[in-house]
Amino acid sequence: MAKRVLIIYAHQSSASFNAAAKNAAVEVLTAQGCTVEVSDLYAMNFKATATAEDLKGEVANAENFCYLMESKLAWEEGRLSDDITKEQTKVTEADLIIFQFPIYWFGFPAIMKGWIDRVLTHGFAYSQEKRYSQGVFKDKKAMLSFTTRSSESMFSPTGIDGDMNVTLWPLQNGILHYCGFQVLAPQIFWAPASVADEDCKSMLEAWRTRLQGLLEEKPLSFFSLGCFDEKTFQLKPEVQEKHASQEFGLTVGIHLNKPLPPHNQMKAGC
Amino acid sequence: MAKRVLIIYAHQSSASFNAAAKNAAVEVLTAQGCTVEVSDLYAMNFKATATAEDLKGEVANAENFCYLMESKLAWEEGRLSDDITKEQTKVTEADLIIFQFPIYWFGFPAIMKGWIDRVLTHGFAYSQEKRYSQGVFKDKKAMLSFTTRSSESMFSPTGIDGDMNVTLWPLQNGILHYCGFQVLAPQIFWAPASVADEDCKSMLEAWRTRLQGLLEEKPLSFFSLGCFDEKTFQLKPEVQEKHASQEFGLTVGIHLNKPLPPHNQMKAGC
Repeated sequence: MAKRVLIIYAHQSSASFNAAAKNAAVEVLTAQGCTVEVSDLYAMNFKATATAEDLKGEVANAENFCYLMESKLAWEEGRLSDDITKEQTKVTEADLIIFQFPIYWFGFPAIMKGWIDRVLTHGFAYSQEKRYSQGVFKDKKAMLSFTTRSSESMFSPTGIDGDMNVTLWPLQNGILHYCGFQVLAPQIFWAPASVADEDCKSMLEAWRTRLQGLLEEKPLSFFSLGCFDEKTFQLKPEVQEKHASQEFGLTVGIHLNKPLPPHNQMKAGC
Repeated sequence: MAKRVLIIYAHQSSASFNAAAKNAAVEVLTAQGCTVEVSDLYAMNFKATATAEDLKGEVANAENFCYLMESKLAWEEGRLSDDITKEQTKVTEADLIIFQFPIYWFGFPAIMKGWIDRVLTHGFAYSQEKRYSQGVFKDKKAMLSFTTRSSESMFSPTGIDGDMNVTLWPLQNGILHYCGFQVLAPQIFWAPASVADEDCKSMLEAWRTRLQGLLEEKPLSFFSLGCFDEKTFQLKPEVQEKHASQEFGLTVGIHLNKPLPPHNQMKAGC
């Protein structure tokens, strides 16, 4: 079945490695019959900061402005700014979202964090009831695809930058999985700026190969909501017990075969 | 000795809990004889996105624009935009930097991430030789002070949001420690929007008390650069051995007494 793919892309230059990775995704996925849309954040001059200008009409509590609550209300009443609404429509229509970016300071570039902050509105992207494995977007997939400055070994558990899985946890669990997305393994392009042209080509070639089977990939596993107590939001004792006996043996997915502390692992559900 | 404190503050409302926390810091630290400066990012309409507009004069490589390299060059040649230069001067003069913000999606609000991306320029804030324990700012301190929406137990290792230490790792290690800052334990205000007014007051009172001794606090410990092999950037075998026998026993600091995977811990140096 033809799928719809949304690429959220953040690089200033169309000659960059990130641009090439984005272009490869557009090409390979389109050739497979997918409809691919790209939000080119720098080209769009995308507004990154969460301000009252994102809301049309009157602010509910001007004296103690709370962006989270105001934007939730504005979403319910169709009063979000047009640029946000446009991105939300793209998200609604997409089966898969790919975030393509250079890692800046162990995370998203600010312009992409701004897309997250402003587009994934409370109500639209999650609610108290609809999050994690019961999340709003549980029928959609999402993934991170990014370039680093450091080498892979520097981002290993014994490397100077620490375990990349830890660095990715807040993004993959706290943002993507939080909204319910099935999270595909990250595509990490290690230090393209520091390697030979040939190695860059090989990395892009490997990405093209992966893209051909991307939509059939098994997503990373997280504990399902049912593993947590409904009132305390703590892992149920029986799950913890089972987890302890597995001794970090069951992590799933590329780059994720490293021990992480209790629960901060992506592993098979309980 | 009188110290200079810089508060990087990101909230839209002067009636918010974050504003109150910022005001408490200004008041208590000023009363102690410190000179306190505040960068009120929303009030300054601080530019969050890293673009060519941040550079005066000619771009070195317009065909394949790389923000990292261009801004490094611009810093060396005094060609960074005035808003960046102004913030860099504040950083240079500060003995302590406090980041005060509401956590947005398990991280900085985009406007604060933009401050990080744009102000901590390669060359100004770090270099290949000067990072981590040999970092440019090793004689300065820095800390995160933030509000959450979730409760503390939800951010425990068995809580639904996972271990807060993991979420903070990329920020505290990957940004603050990377630049050499001595990192003070984070000040976490748990879910002020969800608790009674009295509890909010208590949290602020506890913060005021902590502020009185803040400048004398022992910073969190990280592995020093000497613990890593100079060529491979891997933890030296003897450090790993010592580390393994300690079995996660030596984590230091408030909120940091939880096991983290090898090296992604803040603990006593080797």
